[in-house]
Amino acid sequence: MGVLPFDHPFLSGLLGDEETARHLSAEADLRAMLAFEAALARAEATNGIIPVAAASRIAEICAAFLPDLAALNSATARDGVVVPELVRQLRAAVGEDAAAYVHFGATSQDVIDTSLILRLKPIVRIFVHRLSGIVARLEDLDARFGLRRMMAHTRMQAALPIAVSDRLSAWRMPLMAYCDRLEGLAFPLQFGGAAGTLESFGEKAQALRASLARELGLADAPQWQSQRLPITEVAGLLSSITGSLGKFGQDVALMAQGGSDIALAGGGNSSAMAHKQNPVAAETLVALARFNATQLSAIHQAVVHEQERSGAAWTLEWLVLPQMMLAAAASLRLAGVMSARIERLGRE
Amino acid sequence: MGVLPFDHPFLSGLLGDEETARHLSAEADLRAMLAFEAALARAEATNGIIPVAAASRIAEICAAFLPDLAALNSATARDGVVVPELVRQLRAAVGEDAAAYVHFGATSQDVIDTSLILRLKPIVRIFVHRLSGIVARLEDLDARFGLRRMMAHTRMQAALPIAVSDRLSAWRMPLMAYCDRLEGLAFPLQFGGAAGTLESFGEKAQALRASLARELGLADAPQWQSQRLPITEVAGLLSSITGSLGKFGQDVALMAQGGSDIALAGGGNSSAMAHKQNPVAAETLVALARFNATQLSAIHQAVVHEQERSGAAWTLEWLVLPQMMLAAAASLRLAGVMSARIERLGRE
Amino acid sequence: MGVLPFDHPFLSGLLGDEETARHLSAEADLRAMLAFEAALARAEATNGIIPVAAASRIAEICAAFLPDLAALNSATARDGVVVPELVRQLRAAVGEDAAAYVHFGATSQDVIDTSLILRLKPIVRIFVHRLSGIVARLEDLDARFGLRRMMAHTRMQAALPIAVSDRLSAWRMPLMAYCDRLEGLAFPLQFGGAAGTLESFGEKAQALRASLARELGLADAPQWQSQRLPITEVAGLLSSITGSLGKFGQDVALMAQGGSDIALAGGGNSSAMAHKQNPVAAETLVALARFNATQLSAIHQAVVHEQERSGAAWTLEWLVLPQMMLAAAASLRLAGVMSARIERLGRE
Amino acid sequence: MGVLPFDHPFLSGLLGDEETARHLSAEADLRAMLAFEAALARAEATNGIIPVAAASRIAEICAAFLPDLAALNSATARDGVVVPELVRQLRAAVGEDAAAYVHFGATSQDVIDTSLILRLKPIVRIFVHRLSGIVARLEDLDARFGLRRMMAHTRMQAALPIAVSDRLSAWRMPLMAYCDRLEGLAFPLQFGGAAGTLESFGEKAQALRASLARELGLADAPQWQSQRLPITEVAGLLSSITGSLGKFGQDVALMAQGGSDIALAGGGNSSAMAHKQNPVAAETLVALARFNATQLSAIHQAVVHEQERSGAAWTLEWLVLPQMMLAAAASLRLAGVMSARIERLGRE
Repeated sequence: MGVLPFDHPFLSGLLGDEETARHLSAEADLRAMLAFEAALARAEATNGIIPVAAASRIAEICAAFLPDLAALNSATARDGVVVPELVRQLRAAVGEDAAAYVHFGATSQDVIDTSLILRLKPIVRIFVHRLSGIVARLEDLDARFGLRRMMAHTRMQAALPIAVSDRLSAWRMPLMAYCDRLEGLAFPLQFGGAAGTLESFGEKAQALRASLARELGLADAPQWQSQRLPITEVAGLLSSITGSLGKFGQDVALMAQGGSDIALAGGGNSSAMAHKQNPVAAETLVALARFNATQLSAIHQAVVHEQERSGAAWTLEWLVLPQMMLAAAASLRLAGVMSARIERLGRE
Repeated sequence: MGVLPFDHPFLSGLLGDEETARHLSAEADLRAMLAFEAALARAEATNGIIPVAAASRIAEICAAFLPDLAALNSATARDGVVVPELVRQLRAAVGEDAAAYVHFGATSQDVIDTSLILRLKPIVRIFVHRLSGIVARLEDLDARFGLRRMMAHTRMQAALPIAVSDRLSAWRMPLMAYCDRLEGLAFPLQFGGAAGTLESFGEKAQALRASLARELGLADAPQWQSQRLPITEVAGLLSSITGSLGKFGQDVALMAQGGSDIALAGGGNSSAMAHKQNPVAAETLVALARFNATQLSAIHQAVVHEQERSGAAWTLEWLVLPQMMLAAAASLRLAGVMSARIERLGRE
Repeated sequence: MGVLPFDHPFLSGLLGDEETARHLSAEADLRAMLAFEAALARAEATNGIIPVAAASRIAEICAAFLPDLAALNSATARDGVVVPELVRQLRAAVGEDAAAYVHFGATSQDVIDTSLILRLKPIVRIFVHRLSGIVARLEDLDARFGLRRMMAHTRMQAALPIAVSDRLSAWRMPLMAYCDRLEGLAFPLQFGGAAGTLESFGEKAQALRASLARELGLADAPQWQSQRLPITEVAGLLSSITGSLGKFGQDVALMAQGGSDIALAGGGNSSAMAHKQNPVAAETLVALARFNATQLSAIHQAVVHEQERSGAAWTLEWLVLPQMMLAAAASLRLAGVMSARIERLGRE
Repeated sequence: MGVLPFDHPFLSGLLGDEETARHLSAEADLRAMLAFEAALARAEATNGIIPVAAASRIAEICAAFLPDLAALNSATARDGVVVPELVRQLRAAVGEDAAAYVHFGATSQDVIDTSLILRLKPIVRIFVHRLSGIVARLEDLDARFGLRRMMAHTRMQAALPIAVSDRLSAWRMPLMAYCDRLEGLAFPLQFGGAAGTLESFGEKAQALRASLARELGLADAPQWQSQRLPITEVAGLLSSITGSLGKFGQDVALMAQGGSDIALAGGGNSSAMAHKQNPVAAETLVALARFNATQLSAIHQAVVHEQERSGAAWTLEWLVLPQMMLAAAASLRLAGVMSARIERLGRE
């Protein structure tokens, strides 16, 4: 538990999401980085680049290795990146014969970006599952209340009566589109070596990269170390998801304020006014939407990724992308809760 | 010519783009809105909703109609949107019999969003053409200098020598991906009527919408008046394009500062130092990248589009999206110029 | 008239502001740049740096000089900045003897940043005047309706009745604070020469800078060419102003939707629904607030102003700051209109 | 230790700041909230609003109270805010007679915003101290190397030689201005009660508010629950600080790349290239600047704070402001480290 709202002793109940946070923890990151190093060694052995025995030894150590976190932390302060110290520790654990084959021909960015993509996969699965759940609940509401009437509002004024189904459709359709987009995401391996050219592998480079991608269950692709399309693409989707759920929340809050077109179960207490039922989830969805809409700007600032590898641009991604995932996770969780609390829509 | 840099008596040489701005002008917008009204009338006649004669009369008037701009301007100040006054003027011009069939069953947002999509099409064509041109120039540079060596830089420090081809590839690959994405864009009709339900058309609604889409050469799709996916998608692409070209610019500026890995023709003068050759296009690419990365945030703020139609969210789009297009246009133009000025890359 | 909403044939009625735009036009910029060159010559003559006759000649020409705009535009495309060509034209107009003394010891940034500050002064005066007008109207509403009751809303739910005066005070107090801040702004001269060190003037540099500031009615201050505090400060205020007026607009839109706590005169028409009275000004205030909140980010990105002068950071300011001023101008104008349209607040 | 970079098992060495994070922890927040409740009770007793014995009992319990964190967390999920459950627990601990006087006449926002301001005070002291330290180091560098020459760069090109002192001055001057601004900040009490009108206190309201401010060592001021100037002001300063330090970092990284104008001790290791010394602190300063420049936008989005209290706007502040403080803290720490590592500037 930390100091920031997504991960906080008493704010995470509202803003956190344990299921997603687990994949973003230091532990999960280290496990994924070690999985990369093990898979790299195996792929290199398969391609005759390092001895099979060394690869076995490396993979065996990686499977159970517990790094010295304090040493990682102080080394990251110096190096700007955890990998040099992690590799040093790993080499020490692997021992004499195989040590030199650890991380052979790879660079920090290969490890860190690939670890991100490896953990993005289960997070995307969670998100697709939650989106589907919300869509199902909205379909259920449509089946129950879709033919009722409610007042459409345009420009914050009552316009004409519409069917409840029309409003539900405006909430549901973007979520279905996001499901499709998430399911269509590629999860590309990052593997380029020191300067992005796989310079240590000569003619075996392409075959090795393909083997490594297979080992890790990722898409084989040329390195994208300074190109970042997989990052902007997923970030754009995350912000679109929180944006559409923010629209859902804003609508529910406005309906709850107006009163007659919605009935909600539950709702938050006030410390000063016992009679109030605050639409907490609805408001929080708006906050999370505006949060991610803001963060997306930083991800695009980081596209100006100078030269072969920009420490500045890359660190900026680290500061922003995990939070965008957590914001999307919280938003999906809260939208699920909120949609389940809708007891009635429209008027008979 | 106006007061803002993209469209300014002496800054537009640097930051403007006439070819693109033409499609964003008030004139082009009005022509597209009139094209919508004409096509709507024709589609309604085809579907037996309004008399064929009325549709002919409306289409004939729309083809040559010159609205009273001053009246449009003062009415927009009152209505927040140009369409009510434009329709009023158009009805007056169409005259008694057919006047009532002008804009029949449509709403302001149908006209304005569809006009945007109609003009987005040729803009996307321009952008694909320019991207292809830059890619071709980078391929030509690759053919000429790709085997030479240059110094890779990671974390702002010299790393290892790479082939010029490696750097060129990092510039070129995202541009090729953007071409594909732009070519894959749908250009969906917006058509929903007053509350988004095509409430005036009963069972003919779907057929009418399909006819209208065909008339306009757009994709038939359910209204997206409060959903905005076509907007976020294109905005994300625009910012990605300027971002990757900003990376190209930043790299060129850093190479030009370092000196030996690039030779550039041209360059800007200084008012104080005659000896300088400033990499103006390169720096401007960075500025445009950071500009669009900022604007994208507003487009995502506007996804929180409350109820059936949010004047606030929609107006925010108007303030931002045309500029993002102009920034992308300027960026593509300048990247074309800059890539043509590269006389040498790498060292023999 | 241009292509962008602030300056557009039919959107400027809603989003433009002629009084402010006048100071941001190319003409006003050129006049201010010429005023700088004239004042520089006079101050240099006063301090014995250039001949008095040359200064008189330069000042005389500057007073009436009409630059060749087309040549300025194409030169700006090359140089990234208008000043080298403007100085070239000015020298040609000044003629042989005095030509060499034009722009003596100055650099482009001195001219452009000082022109901005010179034009910021009357804009700030306009804004203070408008803020005062809105405050006066809110005070008048307080005198008329302040003792009535209205429903406070917290977290989008009815909370407790409050006095209308309480709500008015929440609208008014920030505006009064902004008046104070605007009136407390320094308007610093920018004057540093080619590398920011006034290297052409030796021991006379400080006295010359003080003379020049006096000539121009600006505060004397060390150059801030790469520091940008005067820019971030004014930009923060502009966004705060539009933010607080956006809150005012959001509140009015919500009151108008709820119905009984406000009566508004006027309001916008709908192209589809004759019965509606849309709170156009209120919604536009929200859009302008979100616009400036977005732009402020770019101004702060431009604080990372590398080395002595960053073309990238500076150009980014040009793309954003004038628009922030226009957005604030429109917001102040619309808030004035909206406050004048409030016919009743609260219930008896 | 949490999942986000500022507060992370192996990234916090680089990006965290324990000294500042301590004031942002849940524990510090709860201590400050309890201090508010104790001071409120004392001030109410002083003003004859609640019995002195009750105030003593409340203050005594607050001094040592350890809330049930798990219960706080689940209640915050429901209420959107921790205070109702905290007050419930506190009342239970205080016991029968005095329980009803706990939190008397206050609301959640009073507690939470005042807790923020209470903890902002020591954070600002830390920041002023660090800024002064950096300024002192830059002055020391000026004393040692100020008269040497280095190459000025404008528009990413070598311009003219300047004194090292000139560059140091551009780094130092904004920091001195920020010190002044931080020292000039007001730290206003937030106290308004349920609807912001201190409705429980009648004529004693003003005197009570003044007493409470005195008890807490804060400035007495009318409630600002929906106005947020103290928040925008401090956020603007935080982003300005990281911006100017980002410029410092960018300059150092460019000097280190160019080579001859700076000598730096230390530097980061690469996992792939043993010869490299990466300017990690310099790059991280740029990342933190771009991070805060992005976040500032969200703080200004939250100025559109609808009605008496917006859960959406307020929650958005919670998601952003603590991180802006941590980013500024890390930036000040790293700039201190980096300035201490400069071993030489300029050339003899």
